[in-house]
Amino acid sequence: MRPPLDMSAFAELPGLLDELAGFGAEEGGGVTRLLYTESWRAAQLFLEERMRVAGLETRFDRAGNLYGRLLGADSAAPVVLTGSHVDTVRSGGRYDGSYGVVAGLMALAALKRTCGAPLRTLEVVSLCEEEGSRFPLAYWGSGNATGVYGFDDGEGIADADGITLAEAMRTAGFGLETQTPCLRRDIGAFVELHIEQGIVLERSGRQIGLVEAIVGQRRYAVTLTGASNHAGTTPMSMRADALAGAVEMLALLETRAKAAGDPLVATVGRLETMPGTPNVIPGEVRFTLDIRHDKELKLESFCRDTLAAFEAIARSRGLGFESRCWLATKPTQMDDGLTGLLERACLARANSSRRMVSGAGHDAQLFAAVCPAAMLFVPSRGGVSHSSDEYSTPEQLTEGAAVLADCLYELAYGQEWRR
Amino acid sequence: MRPPLDMSAFAELPGLLDELAGFGAEEGGGVTRLLYTESWRAAQLFLEERMRVAGLETRFDRAGNLYGRLLGADSAAPVVLTGSHVDTVRSGGRYDGSYGVVAGLMALAALKRTCGAPLRTLEVVSLCEEEGSRFPLAYWGSGNATGVYGFDDGEGIADADGITLAEAMRTAGFGLETQTPCLRRDIGAFVELHIEQGIVLERSGRQIGLVEAIVGQRRYAVTLTGASNHAGTTPMSMRADALAGAVEMLALLETRAKAAGDPLVATVGRLETMPGTPNVIPGEVRFTLDIRHDKELKLESFCRDTLAAFEAIARSRGLGFESRCWLATKPTQMDDGLTGLLERACLARANSSRRMVSGAGHDAQLFAAVCPAAMLFVPSRGGVSHSSDEYSTPEQLTEGAAVLADCLYELAYGQEWRR
Repeated sequence: MRPPLDMSAFAELPGLLDELAGFGAEEGGGVTRLLYTESWRAAQLFLEERMRVAGLETRFDRAGNLYGRLLGADSAAPVVLTGSHVDTVRSGGRYDGSYGVVAGLMALAALKRTCGAPLRTLEVVSLCEEEGSRFPLAYWGSGNATGVYGFDDGEGIADADGITLAEAMRTAGFGLETQTPCLRRDIGAFVELHIEQGIVLERSGRQIGLVEAIVGQRRYAVTLTGASNHAGTTPMSMRADALAGAVEMLALLETRAKAAGDPLVATVGRLETMPGTPNVIPGEVRFTLDIRHDKELKLESFCRDTLAAFEAIARSRGLGFESRCWLATKPTQMDDGLTGLLERACLARANSSRRMVSGAGHDAQLFAAVCPAAMLFVPSRGGVSHSSDEYSTPEQLTEGAAVLADCLYELAYGQEWRR
Repeated sequence: MRPPLDMSAFAELPGLLDELAGFGAEEGGGVTRLLYTESWRAAQLFLEERMRVAGLETRFDRAGNLYGRLLGADSAAPVVLTGSHVDTVRSGGRYDGSYGVVAGLMALAALKRTCGAPLRTLEVVSLCEEEGSRFPLAYWGSGNATGVYGFDDGEGIADADGITLAEAMRTAGFGLETQTPCLRRDIGAFVELHIEQGIVLERSGRQIGLVEAIVGQRRYAVTLTGASNHAGTTPMSMRADALAGAVEMLALLETRAKAAGDPLVATVGRLETMPGTPNVIPGEVRFTLDIRHDKELKLESFCRDTLAAFEAIARSRGLGFESRCWLATKPTQMDDGLTGLLERACLARANSSRRMVSGAGHDAQLFAAVCPAAMLFVPSRGGVSHSSDEYSTPEQLTEGAAVLADCLYELAYGQEWRR
């Protein structure tokens, strides 16, 4: 593979990202760009203008996904798509999502300038929503594009102020019958570039992460019920201490999770004690449980065995035990062929890379249901994301964009890659 | 020892307790009678009237402690005092404190009726405050009577509504220079009857608990600082999970506390995780620590060793560790001679008894600093207290009162007992 572009093609990438971060910018450096808000709309219009200037043909679909197209000679061939999402979490960073959109835009612009029209149509997409930060529903953009969501799925859903998804969409100028339907049946490949949101690349000193799979997740709410008693007058042997039970469970959880090895992760993010008074034995404890793995069977058996062990601990301590699974997503495998192509692009540019599992969800997992999909990561300083401290260096950002462009070139201009 | 009274002397005790519970009664059965409130004042006036009807000479001191006196023939001899406190926690029960006051009142009334005037003066006290429920300061009643507190100690102290202790006291009609000073220098013995507030008597099937000591307490606030990271993208080996550190500490705490054996108790009543989001690794955990024992040296060494072990755990996990001791009271030994007298009284009435340690604080521990003091407990159903579910049977209540009366008889009427 011979790189079609030199790195100067991406010199303006960091500046463009900074410019995009102006939409929804907050004092202190954070960015808040929630679905269908004014700052979100302004960001999409800004990107549309940039696409147009780069010579891409632009369009919005009914949900507000923005596409920029570089028409291929073979108009019947499946489309090669890249991109990511434009929305943010509250007080998020300037890279999560935005980076993949801007890098895709610049890659298409540079390929057009340098290589002319492709064989197969190339598109970049700025997906309207991925984070689930305004409405209790994530992947609204990629979900509608892939058919995982229909507009019906948004019905009855409202934000914290009671504004429904449908109202918000109309206010932003979308959701009209006359607008382009969201569902795409013509996508041949999807490649998403993203910051890692973790510390694996930084710790291992690699430039590019090649995502083999996106983990499946299970989230549980666990409640333990004991007896709330006087901390002074109840001997240790006469207690039904809900917190002591939780402690035994969570010690076991950590041991089991470490023994299972990467990529399994198990996290208790919230634990509450009731009544929560220093001199009263907790009569009730509630905690959350977040478990992830890239293999469904392993995820399933880890969760089942862990909960069975928890229940045995509760029984042995005379505690009531209740667990409720409130979120379950299956792991998604990325396409081997596409990932191999990204790996060869790294080699050709002498970028160090490593294969890895994404512990966070991404739009690519929705596209993987309808076409070959791949993802690549660049390092994120300290593994920080969803924060104003999110940072990747200009070099890291441009290296990632160049690898993405090389891969897109092979897919859209190359003679070899065919599905 | 021959019991001076038969049980019929206490037949009206449960009814009188119910009547007293009317002051501050809440829907649902709880009682709230906070220091210097209207319900508190009404309860003290009610008790004063009952004392007067029983032929006791009554007086309030400057803090609002109410005394009922049965004058002894030897007016120079030290006074034999019994009683407890009249205030309650918020939505407390009808027995905690009140029982000791009402039982003392009935014991003095019955002794007067049956045995006439004693050799040594007998008094019952309804102490104004013990719980620390309205103002952040406990034992205001016994503290002022024994000189542990002076009125100065109440300065600058206010309740949740900003009303100062001094204002509240004036509103209730106390705190005047012209009123009887609180400090008693004439007490020769103090005996307090109380419900157990624990489950030891019920579980061991004994009627009377003889308190050998009241535990000392240490309370700590502990803060652990780790790194708050993404639950999906941070491998188990790269975490600085503050909750996982706390779990290791609390597992060790339970093991160490059980190994130390009774009467050591160690409790974590409140634990909080920050930021407290299901998919974010806790970057900070705060928990409370309440440790009690009846031997100062053992309490001290247990606390020191436990905190050192906690610190080592934090260090090994790369967590920040901070602990702050915000309460430290020393254990108090009850008087052996008085406790022996109570034990003989139990034997004479064929009441089963056991010696035990009080894991909760009581007014008796303040009197123990100035005179021989003793305490006896009756069972409390399920060990429940500070709750509307607090309950002891009429039989349990009258048995306890009879043992108290026998002891007071020996102390005030007997030829044997002298200090």
